[in-house]
Amino acid sequence: MDSEVDRYTASTPRSAELQAEAERYLPGGSSRGTAYFAPYPFFVERADGHHVVDVDGNRYLDFMLNATTYVLGHSNDRVVEAVREQAANGLSYSTPHESQVRLAQALCERVPSVEKVRFTNSGTEGTLNAIRAARAYTGRHKIAKIEGGYHGNHEYVSVSVYAPLDALDPEEPTSVAEWPGQPPSVVEDVITLHYNDIESTERILRENAAELSCVIIEPVLSNFGYLPADGEYLARLRELTTELGLIFIFDEVQSFRLSQGGAQEQMGVIPDMTTFGKVIGGGMPVGAWGGRADLMDLFDPTDGPVVSHAGTFNANPMTMVAGLATLDQLTPEVYERMNALGDILRAKLRAVFDELDVAVQVTGIGSLFGIHFTEERIVDHRSVLRADRAMQQKLFTGYSMRAS
Amino acid sequence: MDSEVDRYTASTPRSAELQAEAERYLPGGSSRGTAYFAPYPFFVERADGHHVVDVDGNRYLDFMLNATTYVLGHSNDRVVEAVREQAANGLSYSTPHESQVRLAQALCERVPSVEKVRFTNSGTEGTLNAIRAARAYTGRHKIAKIEGGYHGNHEYVSVSVYAPLDALDPEEPTSVAEWPGQPPSVVEDVITLHYNDIESTERILRENAAELSCVIIEPVLSNFGYLPADGEYLARLRELTTELGLIFIFDEVQSFRLSQGGAQEQMGVIPDMTTFGKVIGGGMPVGAWGGRADLMDLFDPTDGPVVSHAGTFNANPMTMVAGLATLDQLTPEVYERMNALGDILRAKLRAVFDELDVAVQVTGIGSLFGIHFTEERIVDHRSVLRADRAMQQKLFTGYSMRAS
Ligand SMILES: Cc1ncc(COP(=O)(O)O)c(C=O)c1O
Ligand SMILES: Cc1ncc(COP(=O)(O)O)c(C=O)c1O
Repeated sequence: MDSEVDRYTASTPRSAELQAEAERYLPGGSSRGTAYFAPYPFFVERADGHHVVDVDGNRYLDFMLNATTYVLGHSNDRVVEAVREQAANGLSYSTPHESQVRLAQALCERVPSVEKVRFTNSGTEGTLNAIRAARAYTGRHKIAKIEGGYHGNHEYVSVSVYAPLDALDPEEPTSVAEWPGQPPSVVEDVITLHYNDIESTERILRENAAELSCVIIEPVLSNFGYLPADGEYLARLRELTTELGLIFIFDEVQSFRLSQGGAQEQMGVIPDMTTFGKVIGGGMPVGAWGGRADLMDLFDPTDGPVVSHAGTFNANPMTMVAGLATLDQLTPEVYERMNALGDILRAKLRAVFDELDVAVQVTGIGSLFGIHFTEERIVDHRSVLRADRAMQQKLFTGYSMRAS
Repeated sequence: MDSEVDRYTASTPRSAELQAEAERYLPGGSSRGTAYFAPYPFFVERADGHHVVDVDGNRYLDFMLNATTYVLGHSNDRVVEAVREQAANGLSYSTPHESQVRLAQALCERVPSVEKVRFTNSGTEGTLNAIRAARAYTGRHKIAKIEGGYHGNHEYVSVSVYAPLDALDPEEPTSVAEWPGQPPSVVEDVITLHYNDIESTERILRENAAELSCVIIEPVLSNFGYLPADGEYLARLRELTTELGLIFIFDEVQSFRLSQGGAQEQMGVIPDMTTFGKVIGGGMPVGAWGGRADLMDLFDPTDGPVVSHAGTFNANPMTMVAGLATLDQLTPEVYERMNALGDILRAKLRAVFDELDVAVQVTGIGSLFGIHFTEERIVDHRSVLRADRAMQQKLFTGYSMRAS
């Protein structure tokens, strides 16, 4: 590990300088917790396809692609051209631009659950508004989420995301605040569920149904190494939420990269609402939520609205044209090829680890994958936490330290 | 009014068609409540300087500039060039880019309260994180805001923003939910204050001090027609928050257009934290919060962090270079000229209304202005609500209906 760090430090002097300067103006040198790794992250100069070049001229093979944002790689010609052309006509306006209609149309046509959609500037703002819709529709304010699931940065999804084992009740899924000073009522209002455990999930939903507005879940849970939900679990959740009158929300901010219709199409389970981000903006800031027309019409300003929703940069044309140029190129064939490449990658990783004789599990689906150092089957937040995370850290750090 | 609408409809057939199509995919045809006006908003084709051209070729003088985002006008050459150049090198990356350091540096150098800063994708995400910092720092979770103040779209600022007169206690500032299904605890946790009323403000802050984390306020309150706070009120609030151990937050998402150092510099009152948006991204999606280093360091990933803060598009280089190209051009001379133009505009508006002999008040400061049809002095949310809002609506609609 030390020698990896030495090699990295030796080859990234300009990044070290920039980080030192950055720390004077930004806590930790940047605006994203995930952008940091020790001893310091490299600073990007430019990116192209699946490569990133840093300010010292080192070239990296990019497995992150801005946290799964890119399907077509960085600097895709048609996306760049669309953005450059739009820039000359204005970056954002007070009234609408046609590009928003086209991107909304594409999502409505592709994603089974989406009858209408609204755009935001981040996945965070997408899940915020989807949950708000569920509350306004049901008149109830509690929500249920999976222990260990991440749905963005706002208060009501910031419960039991990174909660450590010793903060959790061994018997039951546990709602734990993510930081000091969080309102205790937030923790009370967020009910947590064990992923893929239908018995406890059903019991808890029934117990809380009278106060619950919705269940939000990633059909492929990114924090668990992109572990797909069991088909039966999802199908049962769909039935249960219908029976109990709860709004069922899929967070497809990441899993929308699996197919034109997202994970919901692939898995054959159709939620009431779906949230988006990343891919649909082609690399520009974006989020969205969409779903049943009666839920979305709560936001209709021509009718009231029941719930107001504003945002200075929502559906700005730069994001919309980048998203459109991306979706246009995302044909079924692209997904097929990408998903097949993912299968090969997982198979090869497993072969390498077998040869090295380490206890490891490679999870994932399509182009999404995760690596866990453990003998225990990965099924939920706790099994992920019990894996050897230091070892995982070493693997990722070692990889980051090597320019290609 | 009817004839204005007829004229508008006759000259905007393509916008009418687009709106009809848009309403099939988006509730109300767009992603922003404020982008809608009856009978339908016009769709923008392109924008340049202070003009916007719609899809039917009509040209409008733009007083909104994407809700005060633009100081240099639309499609400023240097901003467009910066964005086009950056696009070719990538739209967003997993690790940092130097442009973020430069924009952070500019804000730290210009704004008195800002020792360190972090970027987000919207003003909403900026106030969300500033409030979270105050809570984590004090360990207390209630917040105080001005009745009628807007600070974005997240739950804890969505209290008493558009509350109508009949929902308000005549004797006291009142916390009112903004939509059905809002958690009752949110309304309890947000204490409201009367703008510019130091007696009641002081009493309420003292009563609630043991549970309060912060006071958030716009030094120039946009919802009240950009009404600047009384200097004495702000100065007293600064003293009081210090005495009571509360974090004092200025929301300068809009008022940062007043000077290089924002309203705080102009008014000589320095808060603990400041939130930003709009101008600092040059037209691209942006938000930020900054302030005292000890508050900002709660987010430092090299130290823990105490509070994690992520976001896929935070500080993306497209936004950062657009913001930098904008701030570079915002010299003291530009602000002087712009603010003088604002003074002239307000004086001329007053002269016109005097001649027409209507009861009207023109509020504002610098390039920000508001028009209220009332004899009563505008001082707070309630006086704004008591003005003739139908008349105001007519004025704005009549204006929007006339291409220049
Ligand atoms: C599943 C999921 N939901 C929501 C979000 C939040 O999106 P954003 O980072 O754009 O706020 C993310 C971001 O990583 C995510 O992975
Ligand atoms: C004072 C103030 N704060 C916060 C916001 C929220 O910013 P955004 O629309 O970027 O979320 C706004 C937006 O109009 C604002 O005027």
